[in-house]
Amino acid sequence: MNARPRLHELGVASGAFRRGSLNAITDVAGVRIGHSTVQTDTLSTGVTAIVADQLNADRRWLPAGLAVGNGYGKLIGATQLQELGAIETPVLLTSTLSAFRAADALVAWVLEQPGHEATRSLNPVVGETNDSYLSDIRSRPVGESHVREALAAAASGPVAEGGVGAGTGTVALGYKGGIGTASRVFSVGASDYTVGAIVQSNYSGTLRIAGVPMPAADLLAAEPAVGDGNSCMIVLATDAPLDARQLSRVANRAIFAMHGTGSDFAQGSGDYAIAFSVAEGSPPDDSLLSPAFEATMDAVEEALVNSLLQATTRTGFRGNTARQVPIDAVRERLRRAEWMRESERMRD
Amino acid sequence: MNARPRLHELGVASGAFRRGSLNAITDVAGVRIGHSTVQTDTLSTGVTAIVADQLNADRRWLPAGLAVGNGYGKLIGATQLQELGAIETPVLLTSTLSAFRAADALVAWVLEQPGHEATRSLNPVVGETNDSYLSDIRSRPVGESHVREALAAAASGPVAEGGVGAGTGTVALGYKGGIGTASRVFSVGASDYTVGAIVQSNYSGTLRIAGVPMPAADLLAAEPAVGDGNSCMIVLATDAPLDARQLSRVANRAIFAMHGTGSDFAQGSGDYAIAFSVAEGSPPDDSLLSPAFEATMDAVEEALVNSLLQATTRTGFRGNTARQVPIDAVRERLRRAEWMRESERMRD
Amino acid sequence: MNARPRLHELGVASGAFRRGSLNAITDVAGVRIGHSTVQTDTLSTGVTAIVADQLNADRRWLPAGLAVGNGYGKLIGATQLQELGAIETPVLLTSTLSAFRAADALVAWVLEQPGHEATRSLNPVVGETNDSYLSDIRSRPVGESHVREALAAAASGPVAEGGVGAGTGTVALGYKGGIGTASRVFSVGASDYTVGAIVQSNYSGTLRIAGVPMPAADLLAAEPAVGDGNSCMIVLATDAPLDARQLSRVANRAIFAMHGTGSDFAQGSGDYAIAFSVAEGSPPDDSLLSPAFEATMDAVEEALVNSLLQATTRTGFRGNTARQVPIDAVRERLRRAEWMRESERMRD
Amino acid sequence: MNARPRLHELGVASGAFRRGSLNAITDVAGVRIGHSTVQTDTLSTGVTAIVADQLNADRRWLPAGLAVGNGYGKLIGATQLQELGAIETPVLLTSTLSAFRAADALVAWVLEQPGHEATRSLNPVVGETNDSYLSDIRSRPVGESHVREALAAAASGPVAEGGVGAGTGTVALGYKGGIGTASRVFSVGASDYTVGAIVQSNYSGTLRIAGVPMPAADLLAAEPAVGDGNSCMIVLATDAPLDARQLSRVANRAIFAMHGTGSDFAQGSGDYAIAFSVAEGSPPDDSLLSPAFEATMDAVEEALVNSLLQATTRTGFRGNTARQVPIDAVRERLRRAEWMRESERMRD
Repeated sequence: MNARPRLHELGVASGAFRRGSLNAITDVAGVRIGHSTVQTDTLSTGVTAIVADQLNADRRWLPAGLAVGNGYGKLIGATQLQELGAIETPVLLTSTLSAFRAADALVAWVLEQPGHEATRSLNPVVGETNDSYLSDIRSRPVGESHVREALAAAASGPVAEGGVGAGTGTVALGYKGGIGTASRVFSVGASDYTVGAIVQSNYSGTLRIAGVPMPAADLLAAEPAVGDGNSCMIVLATDAPLDARQLSRVANRAIFAMHGTGSDFAQGSGDYAIAFSVAEGSPPDDSLLSPAFEATMDAVEEALVNSLLQATTRTGFRGNTARQVPIDAVRERLRRAEWMRESERMRD
Repeated sequence: MNARPRLHELGVASGAFRRGSLNAITDVAGVRIGHSTVQTDTLSTGVTAIVADQLNADRRWLPAGLAVGNGYGKLIGATQLQELGAIETPVLLTSTLSAFRAADALVAWVLEQPGHEATRSLNPVVGETNDSYLSDIRSRPVGESHVREALAAAASGPVAEGGVGAGTGTVALGYKGGIGTASRVFSVGASDYTVGAIVQSNYSGTLRIAGVPMPAADLLAAEPAVGDGNSCMIVLATDAPLDARQLSRVANRAIFAMHGTGSDFAQGSGDYAIAFSVAEGSPPDDSLLSPAFEATMDAVEEALVNSLLQATTRTGFRGNTARQVPIDAVRERLRRAEWMRESERMRD
Repeated sequence: MNARPRLHELGVASGAFRRGSLNAITDVAGVRIGHSTVQTDTLSTGVTAIVADQLNADRRWLPAGLAVGNGYGKLIGATQLQELGAIETPVLLTSTLSAFRAADALVAWVLEQPGHEATRSLNPVVGETNDSYLSDIRSRPVGESHVREALAAAASGPVAEGGVGAGTGTVALGYKGGIGTASRVFSVGASDYTVGAIVQSNYSGTLRIAGVPMPAADLLAAEPAVGDGNSCMIVLATDAPLDARQLSRVANRAIFAMHGTGSDFAQGSGDYAIAFSVAEGSPPDDSLLSPAFEATMDAVEEALVNSLLQATTRTGFRGNTARQVPIDAVRERLRRAEWMRESERMRD
Repeated sequence: MNARPRLHELGVASGAFRRGSLNAITDVAGVRIGHSTVQTDTLSTGVTAIVADQLNADRRWLPAGLAVGNGYGKLIGATQLQELGAIETPVLLTSTLSAFRAADALVAWVLEQPGHEATRSLNPVVGETNDSYLSDIRSRPVGESHVREALAAAASGPVAEGGVGAGTGTVALGYKGGIGTASRVFSVGASDYTVGAIVQSNYSGTLRIAGVPMPAADLLAAEPAVGDGNSCMIVLATDAPLDARQLSRVANRAIFAMHGTGSDFAQGSGDYAIAFSVAEGSPPDDSLLSPAFEATMDAVEEALVNSLLQATTRTGFRGNTARQVPIDAVRERLRRAEWMRESERMRD
């Protein structure tokens, strides 16, 4: 869906686990992704919706866990998610100051769904990052129509990445950031499961890909973009029958994986990971979970890199420009470091 | 402001600490309270705003702590409050499904305040309880105008209690609940400070006042009201120079104090306490904090009782009726138990 | 086992749920309690062991949750209990400064058990309260022999309460405190389950029984005892198939219930509740948990009162004396307040 | 103190901040480190003591924060550290099953210190990792003499690293691990401060140094060591006047930094970071903390690498061998990747 390569097309293995067929969160059956993208002279923003078909009139919640890497963010729905270990709505990602109206619109939408005729309490889950470098964030431009558009557009299959939906205006590691996704297949005992990640990248630091530094200050001919209120939202889906506590353990690893891409975990960054399971059934013993954790870290790291690789240069509010990662320079650096990654690839 | 008595007018001491002069959260200098009340045939709802004058263009945050007694609630702003140990906006209370648009309106209002010309990130704090027994909650009736009205109305001085603002449609312990407030003066070392509580009561259980049971099933001639999604929001203000961690310790005690009024801490109740300090200066040693904790518990218990004593019978949505606590019966029961409270009063 | 009455023998209903047949934590099948009591001129201390037969060579952990009401205490094993949502050893209660050698002895004992031949990691769970008012705590008098004695003595059936085991030297609410227990039967959906509580009471405040104040300053002819480092350890067992997250919710309610007995939740009190389940099977929906919560609060409140009612006057270290609750005065006060508790009893 | 190089002697910059003069936690004035090392045919274990001179008869606690990266560990003292935001004893590191007797010995030692004549409550802080691959852990060989030896040996100046003290028997990333340290100088506003890290490395994954993979499976001629119960204990000291909440934020970053060295964050790893401050004075605004966070990550990553670089091959219990990182191979790989690190070095 984009002439620019995803990480695996650059020949980077990124860990010991097999990718899912789409290498996307939609590899988890039932998970759909939809975007609403807002692009004008002053606006670069939007909404991304993560929808699980398993959440329906018959099944009113899915087990979920949360990791707060750095709570400088306005995540809506956190405390009830933690108390009940569950999500009961799709998860939305959007722009910081629009998160509240997005949550309001999400409530409106859910109340209209079959089975919700008598619903009088609902915990919408909405994450956000700050896209004010490229977008007039104070105008709170995201409204009900964008939420409905993203939810209506939610589809299985390949996922649009880069500067789309909630990633339209984000900036990461000096480059244009955005939405990225990836997936991994892992085993719990004798069973195979999939974990998929979708990210909204918007944080500071120095990009690394597979350990190789790709500093914007070096690779770009221009000044790196400097986002305001850097953050990273990560949503994980799995078909492994993990319970809420175990999903929190998974979510913690998603935060750790940000380090692999060069995040500096700045104090003003809202770094959160939400993990949910679409499965039913008894949770496995925790002693079997290490592969789930490692696969999650690999998927998140790749999703973050994909969010940058897939994004393209954008000039937005006040003429600020966030430049795309120069693919040729990345290829060249990866090529020079190829020897470095050989032993890893062999584990693949 | 109400012909019905507050707890202290019934001669109940409620602990060893002196009340503030108004016996209200507004005894903490700089704290103002405003209500917006919505009352129609189908609506019984509103907004209550807790405003601290110390939060202004020069001082952008106040230290704050949070206690999550039971996270079945949609508190907005929780994770950033905890990470930074601070609030940076007034605190609003409102109706569950309207909390998101109230937060959106609060953002709009703050962005207009002096000093916020360049603000591009903001963490509004909005608590809620479910008023669907008396109000058509699904219509999400609270909007920007109500938020602005409550903020504009915020005043020092006596605080309207009972069925006003965010308490217009709430139901507690089988009776009509609402907004209540109280305060206590306590010492930290050689210095005197004030703690004030304001509550939005909306929870199940069996009312106790000063240990004396006042079950709705006994005291009412009619069926007790049965709220949906019972909850309790508690906001505490103090002029003691406590830091965020210490304020979290204070907030925990507010939750514990709910037990004194007969809360059953039902699984579907969103019970939260937020404590903030308007003071500047070095925090005291924790070894000095027990009086602050005890005074907080007394103030919260009294505020909760006041929220019921001050509320009057209301018939709302679908003809549901929540009846007021019968004051005469309360007086009679307290009178019969007077001997019981004597030893306590002597500590006053 | 004691001429002094337990709470139910005073005719106090304490809530709407039926008591278990022993009204003890041992009503949960498989749970055994053992004490080791140390009483000399300078020592008033000991160990209480809570053992679950379900924890054995075949089943290496039981789901468990933790509530930290006030973390001023040296609870051993907290973080792993929370991470894995499990206990893997019996739970011990003992004296503050002896907790570490008790934990060491517990490790030694578990390593000898069948199935632990190759165990190289183990998370002993040991709670403590401070018995220094009556005991020479600095001598750290509890050792391996006491731990082994308590574990060996662990039995089903009635539980010795008051000044035994870990309760030998504790002081609560101005009186001699100690060990107490109680249980309740509750429903989750169509199934009946039992929750049992055992407590080590050692905290400050003003005693209330069924809402009726029983201040030590009034009921005792002498000065109330003033403990040092007041605390309360609560352990809950249930045969309901709750998972770790749900057990944490249960444990929270145990802390709340301390309020009913008059705890002032002083800053220097280590107030913790650990809840574990001996059941296997799928956890129920959280929407069904309110009865479990309320039954837990009732059981804990009664266990705390029992710990005082069953304790007898003891003079210990430095001639300090902690006096027993005068039963006649309690009876008299309860009798005068009988009218007050009638409506409650009718719910029984 | 060791013929093997530390990381900086390999010419690796590891971030943008200046190292302290010793590049050790002892660069924070007042902090002393002592080891007790136990090496026999069957034992490879010991104790490492982190002592702050600022903790003395006049100053009974230092502000401290905790991060639980993965709570599969037996950290003693966690809940009180979090409640009070403080440590009140030196911090010890040792072997898992010996942690409890080490804590007991630490209590004994503190009670003997000036000013503790009347101490009747104390919260010893002891971390541990599992050294059972090289040591007969079940014998719980660490006792009071080792604790006293480590405390007595605590000195300022250079810190012995590698297989000493609590690092004697640990295994990390397939190699022999151990104790490592590093420090960084950073600014908060106009003031310069130091953060120092000391680590006990004992975790699984694939070693990376400055992003360059150094897999044990490739670099060793023999099978990599496979530790049991992998874990990582990290202790941070700073002279910046951070409060407990801020120190928790710092501690979180220490966990994140483990990712940079190739940790797989396995489910059975007890990964904890404790951060304390020796400073007095008002805490800075959080908006100034990003440099503290980044400097901490750099120091921790370097301390972890140092713990491996400085460790030497050891054969222990049951003939298990943990092999040292082959320095020549590391040099060669770093040399080949030199181009890769150039841009980073320029930020130095």
